[in-house]
Amino acid sequence: MSAEELEAFLYSHFPDMKNPSFRVEKVDEHFAQVRLLYHDRHLRPGGTISGPSLMTLADTAMYIAVLAMIGPVALAVTTNLNINFLRKPAQADVIAQARLLKLGKRLAVGEVSMYSDGSAEPVAHATVTYSIPANLETA
Amino acid sequence: MSAEELEAFLYSHFPDMKNPSFRVEKVDEHFAQVRLLYHDRHLRPGGTISGPSLMTLADTAMYIAVLAMIGPVALAVTTNLNINFLRKPAQADVIAQARLLKLGKRLAVGEVSMYSDGSAEPVAHATVTYSIPANLETA
Amino acid sequence: MSAEELEAFLYSHFPDMKNPSFRVEKVDEHFAQVRLLYHDRHLRPGGTISGPSLMTLADTAMYIAVLAMIGPVALAVTTNLNINFLRKPAQADVIAQARLLKLGKRLAVGEVSMYSDGSAEPVAHATVTYSIPANLETA
Amino acid sequence: MSAEELEAFLYSHFPDMKNPSFRVEKVDEHFAQVRLLYHDRHLRPGGTISGPSLMTLADTAMYIAVLAMIGPVALAVTTNLNINFLRKPAQADVIAQARLLKLGKRLAVGEVSMYSDGSAEPVAHATVTYSIPANLETA
Repeated sequence: MSAEELEAFLYSHFPDMKNPSFRVEKVDEHFAQVRLLYHDRHLRPGGTISGPSLMTLADTAMYIAVLAMIGPVALAVTTNLNINFLRKPAQADVIAQARLLKLGKRLAVGEVSMYSDGSAEPVAHATVTYSIPANLETA
Repeated sequence: MSAEELEAFLYSHFPDMKNPSFRVEKVDEHFAQVRLLYHDRHLRPGGTISGPSLMTLADTAMYIAVLAMIGPVALAVTTNLNINFLRKPAQADVIAQARLLKLGKRLAVGEVSMYSDGSAEPVAHATVTYSIPANLETA
Repeated sequence: MSAEELEAFLYSHFPDMKNPSFRVEKVDEHFAQVRLLYHDRHLRPGGTISGPSLMTLADTAMYIAVLAMIGPVALAVTTNLNINFLRKPAQADVIAQARLLKLGKRLAVGEVSMYSDGSAEPVAHATVTYSIPANLETA
Repeated sequence: MSAEELEAFLYSHFPDMKNPSFRVEKVDEHFAQVRLLYHDRHLRPGGTISGPSLMTLADTAMYIAVLAMIGPVALAVTTNLNINFLRKPAQADVIAQARLLKLGKRLAVGEVSMYSDGSAEPVAHATVTYSIPANLETA
């Protein structure tokens, strides 16, 4: 699936993302890049992007990286997410780069680095595990 | 601070929560209970509460547990969150119970168990670390 | 399986534990209590029990809690372990209490609280996920 | 500090590592590579390197990466470690590559990828947080 198809799939299945906050910028072998568009409603006290926005970004980027490999399986579900918040984000878009570390039949594990647009230092880093539906195993 | 004061503080500082999705139900020594009100916009494909909604709930419940102990410090920030998704949530409110495991001068660590209303089996479990602002250390 | 049988199973399958560092003290429905016997070789600079010793204890306690439920399956393997180190341990035994949060067909998830013997405040807290071998699924 | 100095420091401060299981192979800006020498006592049932051995390796590699930047501070302590076990390790050395994501005054956060010698696919991946002693902050 292309980046455009994956973004369209995302919006059609997740009504909460219908105001396009996320842009799927690039997909490649075991890789996805997703941009969180800067918007006031992502802010928390102190003027930074909120932790929940970054967690949602990490989860979404990993989901796109998995779907890019296994196809449009809406029912793949996160089983574990671990995130470290590293630096105060700038008032700018946040770019997530998700890399799959393992793509097994039952579990996909990846890591996600997140950067404020224009900065080389990560604002957050996550590892995410997705469970892949059983009906795919025999497909 | 009382549960009502903490809920009011939450809404006044986090504009994104102005449609009251969260209700602070109870605070006690090292403990907070927060309810995520069921709403269609929390759903993901398959009809369950989305992972990001549960992550936001875990983070919020821990934040309330910390604020209940140290007072209204909007700038306490999450440094680490680890969540395991255990069961498909029901189409119902989700209740989070946050317990502080450590409340140090620099870091607070707690665990959060989340249940669909009316169920005894947890739908998710998180551990969360908050960093406490340095100006409190000398206060 | 009883606590004694589980401890014997542990030593017979893990040659590295042949000097009995661990004692299985209690098993119950979704619960296990394992004691790490105090010994100089667990120390790290500063005179405290080392982090790796506590990680091994958390992993072992969870393993025992899983085996107590599903029987002696040596090949159950850890897929994720997350540990927070909370306080400097005393120069004493460490007691781990593992509770299963979920025992599914493919994954078991639990949390482990660890205490220095005689203290009510945890020194560390872990969440652990075990993968259960596929041949059990059809058994 | 050089790789040789860091390895000597490690052995002099951690009596449990006196049989040289770990070799510090390389240190660089925000980076360390540490090798776990293959030995039967690291095995678990099924003939693979045990989870605790990999956790100890991840913790050690991160410790070396931190010390290489801040100098020989034996009392830096791990506050959080999260590890995903990805593949069955080969009966071979395991090589850990630790990269610092953040080196703050109070906390250092890094990620560690671990590979069986000769393989390009990681056997495990960890994120580790170290707390840096307060006396360094004012030094």
